[in-house]
Amino acid sequence: MLESALNPKAIVVVGASDNPHKIGGRPLLYLSRFGYKGRVYPVNPHRRSVQGQPAFPDVASVPEAPDLAIIATPGVMASEAVRNCAARGVRTAVVMAAGFGETGDVGAAAEERRMVACARAAGMRIVGPNSQGLANFGSGAVASFSTMFLEVEPKDGPVAIVSQSGMMSVAPYGLLRGKGIGVRHAHATGNDSDVSLPELVLAVVHDPGVRLLLLYIESIRDPAILAEAAVVARERDVPIVAIKAGRTARGQAAARSHTGALANEDRVVDAFFHEHGIWRARDVHELVGAAELYLKGWRPKGRRLAVVSNSGASCVMAADILQEVDLDFASLSTDTQAALATQLPSFATTTNPIDLTAALLTDSRLFGSVLSALSDDDGFDELLITLPVAGAGYDVSSYARAAAEFAVRTGTPTVVAALQEAVAAKFREMGVPTFANQTEAISVLAQLVHHVRLMHRPRAAASPGAVVELPEGRSRFLSEAQSLDILSAVGLPTVRYRLCRSDAEARAAFRQFDGPVVLKACSPQLPHKSDLNLVTLDVRAEDDVTLAFSWLEDRLRVQGIVADGIIVAPMKKGRREFVLGARVDPVFGPVLIIGDGGRYVEALDDIALLLPPVRAEDVREALSTLRIAPLLDGVRKEPPLDIEPLCSAAVSLGQLVTANAERIASIDLNPLIVGSRGEGITIVDALIERSVHDRSGVVNTSPDEAWTVARRR
Amino acid sequence: MLESALNPKAIVVVGASDNPHKIGGRPLLYLSRFGYKGRVYPVNPHRRSVQGQPAFPDVASVPEAPDLAIIATPGVMASEAVRNCAARGVRTAVVMAAGFGETGDVGAAAEERRMVACARAAGMRIVGPNSQGLANFGSGAVASFSTMFLEVEPKDGPVAIVSQSGMMSVAPYGLLRGKGIGVRHAHATGNDSDVSLPELVLAVVHDPGVRLLLLYIESIRDPAILAEAAVVARERDVPIVAIKAGRTARGQAAARSHTGALANEDRVVDAFFHEHGIWRARDVHELVGAAELYLKGWRPKGRRLAVVSNSGASCVMAADILQEVDLDFASLSTDTQAALATQLPSFATTTNPIDLTAALLTDSRLFGSVLSALSDDDGFDELLITLPVAGAGYDVSSYARAAAEFAVRTGTPTVVAALQEAVAAKFREMGVPTFANQTEAISVLAQLVHHVRLMHRPRAAASPGAVVELPEGRSRFLSEAQSLDILSAVGLPTVRYRLCRSDAEARAAFRQFDGPVVLKACSPQLPHKSDLNLVTLDVRAEDDVTLAFSWLEDRLRVQGIVADGIIVAPMKKGRREFVLGARVDPVFGPVLIIGDGGRYVEALDDIALLLPPVRAEDVREALSTLRIAPLLDGVRKEPPLDIEPLCSAAVSLGQLVTANAERIASIDLNPLIVGSRGEGITIVDALIERSVHDRSGVVNTSPDEAWTVARRR
Repeated sequence: MLESALNPKAIVVVGASDNPHKIGGRPLLYLSRFGYKGRVYPVNPHRRSVQGQPAFPDVASVPEAPDLAIIATPGVMASEAVRNCAARGVRTAVVMAAGFGETGDVGAAAEERRMVACARAAGMRIVGPNSQGLANFGSGAVASFSTMFLEVEPKDGPVAIVSQSGMMSVAPYGLLRGKGIGVRHAHATGNDSDVSLPELVLAVVHDPGVRLLLLYIESIRDPAILAEAAVVARERDVPIVAIKAGRTARGQAAARSHTGALANEDRVVDAFFHEHGIWRARDVHELVGAAELYLKGWRPKGRRLAVVSNSGASCVMAADILQEVDLDFASLSTDTQAALATQLPSFATTTNPIDLTAALLTDSRLFGSVLSALSDDDGFDELLITLPVAGAGYDVSSYARAAAEFAVRTGTPTVVAALQEAVAAKFREMGVPTFANQTEAISVLAQLVHHVRLMHRPRAAASPGAVVELPEGRSRFLSEAQSLDILSAVGLPTVRYRLCRSDAEARAAFRQFDGPVVLKACSPQLPHKSDLNLVTLDVRAEDDVTLAFSWLEDRLRVQGIVADGIIVAPMKKGRREFVLGARVDPVFGPVLIIGDGGRYVEALDDIALLLPPVRAEDVREALSTLRIAPLLDGVRKEPPLDIEPLCSAAVSLGQLVTANAERIASIDLNPLIVGSRGEGITIVDALIERSVHDRSGVVNTSPDEAWTVARRR
Repeated sequence: MLESALNPKAIVVVGASDNPHKIGGRPLLYLSRFGYKGRVYPVNPHRRSVQGQPAFPDVASVPEAPDLAIIATPGVMASEAVRNCAARGVRTAVVMAAGFGETGDVGAAAEERRMVACARAAGMRIVGPNSQGLANFGSGAVASFSTMFLEVEPKDGPVAIVSQSGMMSVAPYGLLRGKGIGVRHAHATGNDSDVSLPELVLAVVHDPGVRLLLLYIESIRDPAILAEAAVVARERDVPIVAIKAGRTARGQAAARSHTGALANEDRVVDAFFHEHGIWRARDVHELVGAAELYLKGWRPKGRRLAVVSNSGASCVMAADILQEVDLDFASLSTDTQAALATQLPSFATTTNPIDLTAALLTDSRLFGSVLSALSDDDGFDELLITLPVAGAGYDVSSYARAAAEFAVRTGTPTVVAALQEAVAAKFREMGVPTFANQTEAISVLAQLVHHVRLMHRPRAAASPGAVVELPEGRSRFLSEAQSLDILSAVGLPTVRYRLCRSDAEARAAFRQFDGPVVLKACSPQLPHKSDLNLVTLDVRAEDDVTLAFSWLEDRLRVQGIVADGIIVAPMKKGRREFVLGARVDPVFGPVLIIGDGGRYVEALDDIALLLPPVRAEDVREALSTLRIAPLLDGVRKEPPLDIEPLCSAAVSLGQLVTANAERIASIDLNPLIVGSRGEGITIVDALIERSVHDRSGVVNTSPDEAWTVARRR
């Protein structure tokens, strides 16, 4: 649990500086200033004392094996210090020097690997390199050179921040401290060459003082550990909010030269966070925005918002924003409305949003009376009080008291939006969270509602899928026939077909299927047979089968492709083409994909990702996020689509790819044809890609490219 | 130009109160405090003097006809005051009382109309009722009861705010004044019963002191005046930023009870703003966010952003946000990169974004050197400096000087993102705009770039379309045949068809068209013939024509529909179905619609709206905003779609509906089939709806309903 890093008994500072504003000076200053109780050994070969403390000429000469080393020397000297610390029995070393793996330089990356290997050989862990350091304000072990701790006085508290970036370990700290919230942990892991961010998260989530976890991540390398930490966090009711930067190609390029981050596919990250109840923030303001609400222990059960304002315009703009953030306007009970009618001016409405109108200026008790009328109504789950303009003539202190009492009495999450700092301050003094920006106030309430739901949503139990045997061979892809057979064997609803090697067989198949058929060339070499014009749809007459068969044979000959035969299968129309797929992500493992299918899967890009195991309900929820979702229930007198078997197929596919992740790199079913409710679904095309483990000697493309290729048929 | 309202020579205050915190007291306080030079006549029948000024018992007894009356009395007394003011020769009256049209009460709305009629009869204008008042800090004529002007000291300046809401006339004022920006106008029009927001906008846009216009609108009733104001604004290079609240159904409901706002269809509002170069903001923070940048006179020509930071994480997050806001990362010249290489640590990259790394802590001249290296590079259009954490050890003052010099020397829009107020303050002192939130800083730069482009984009010249004659009749819709004929007559590419009244005619048509045909019942009673199953597609044999014909006849008989005949037309496949339509909006006039067509137009809702006249380029730009846009150029070896004739058709349809807006309520072409480039387009179904003016005796539905009906085929 990285005890030596978080609660060290003795710390050595290598490269200790007398100047408290240098990298080697700051940690010494912080250790003495923030109440660290352990022993500190500055190492500086050129000085007898550093910042008033006796200095040691080298690591070897410190009088005990320190739990933690802070290595503040740059470049090559840092590598040497790592060796010396490892030799001296240091348990964890924080390496602050930059210029290693993050530069993209081959030599520098190799040097980073050597450093780690040297440490590991001695049983020492490394945080960094390129780390701003660790800071534990619970123990005072502040092994960091951040400027922020000089700018904003620390206070121990319930928040833990773990970040791969130094700045992002302290920027949220600054914002939280500005709101009076205490922070216990503020750690920066830098290049994650050894100790990874997830490891550190797992360590701090067990700290009983931690009630909120904020993360900044540029690359996730060991999601299983982060998932384990998320389980503990949910058990402890500790929300996790995370920025995963490098969302875009440009961002990923920037991240590479910052912390040497490897790219994660962004939608897989989204699916991972969703699965594990982690809320994703976009910037530092979103990261800390809901902190106060989480820490109040507010865990709303519903999404029904009530709004009280002295501004009609604020009510209108609040109403406009609700749909965007997926909250509902609460309906007030008739009792509440009757009570409001006795308080409000005759021309005001008594429905939600409640506009106090300019009457608040003439009747200062109005505010309290309205909150009192609301406090017996259990028809809403959150309350927004929005007072964009108040001041002289308004008894804001009394409003603040009433709001605080309301929140305490009812347990309802209650926030205030106020543009004027003086107005906001009165509410904050009474412990009511305030926001200058009403849009932010509503977004933060919505985050609380949706995050709590995400944390508590039921999770699928892992259910073992069948292990399948792939046909022998070294080809990257299985043929369509081979793919369909494997899927059919595990019970997935594939189209019937015959693999025909002669015209006679094809004609017999036409007669067998009694009607329009499709003919498709079948070969492991043909992952994109449509693009090569090797598919003939809707063949309606037996003689046309002969024509199509010989045409396909011709085309194969011309293109020099050896095929296993021609697939003849019934022409299925159904109602709508979906895509269902799975692949094994190199970092996150099995991933399911479901969405609008057919020829334009990539161009229209209307898909959702899920991490198996999934429940049918999870698939249904994913489908509801698609742009084609309005079509699922049927429009314009159509019957609904048959979504249940689609969901079941997704569940099964998740089990299949999970059980066979060593063998299968990806499975792509496109199109999967969905009929009207009761008509079922049919997989009419399938492509299974072998894992590299399963095809020695085959040159592999990158997993991303493979995925793209697979989806492109 | 509402001179009497904005620069009155004498003001009467009806309902003047001795208490400066009452509605009738505030305007008196403000007129004396903010330097109003004209004459002020308080009217109060119960007092000899009010706030130290001699009071008059009634309006009749004031010694001159005042330009402006402030009517601060409530309810019925306000109506009486309007009568008295009209009688006394007042030119404009500001009515502050609420409880009129906005209540939804029939009697109250009638009272509002009577008030306006009484004023108009006497040649008096009314601002309000339900108005917080007008405030002109140029002349000191502050006829408002807002609390805000006590909270935040006014300063005359280049910004004008015009709002239908009182709060939203002063909330932006407060935020701007907080940034040190002066505000000249802050007007609230309330219910817009007489003087409308657009009228007031047109008045203030001519004020030569105004260089930025901010609007808050709940309902647009006279868009032509707002459009006229926008023309003046563009000529004067005055940006207009506007909130149009009531974007959603919930918001519209809230707006109705706030200012009595009539609903505007939100996408038409978007199209109107786009057409007139008005930037749309969502809340008050977005409304004022870019104010400093506009007022600096920055008008960037491109979207290439350069970023300088001391935080790699900020660079990564900036990169992530760029795509969202449609900015590009600038590529720095090789000269610049060479210059940077001499300044930055060896391990830092010399490409954009420029990460100064922790080296900034040890080398305080680094910042200035980097800006200096950048100042000769014309490869970027905007500069973001993001310093999330600085402070002790950082020479922030010198950075601020360097940034200010850079901005002045190069004219490049330059903004700073800094979380710490102390850091931001140093830059602000040097006149560099700052933002606590980096995401906001980038969004604001993007707004500036895109808004400038919007203001300066070429506009289509109005081009007269042909006036068409509709067939006689009282039906709400024309039949498909009638509709196609009219479109064909003005040169739009409609499908060839024959309207057949017998099986023999239908068979002849089949032979004429030589191949698969469609049969469709044709009647003005059949705007949704698909839903009634009165269409037979893809009839491939002449005998099948007979079957289809008699089947359609049967269905017509069973459903009791009198048809003009059965349309037989070639079955057109093309490549993609689009929808092209037009309607006459009751407020905004002709509106064009273009998008993904077919059966699911409404459910998939992938459309764009334009206000004619439009150029083909405008249509192309609108098409590029569709979700199906990636298909236009062809994907997966397909040729591109034939977009040019589609754009031309939209231009023509815009001319047609504009020239016939008195006759035609809507035109709906769905599907319009688009082939590959060079193959052209074909309108295969058309529906023209008569205007109510053109069909006396026919009960009309609301325009919105008509539109929905029309699009539903």
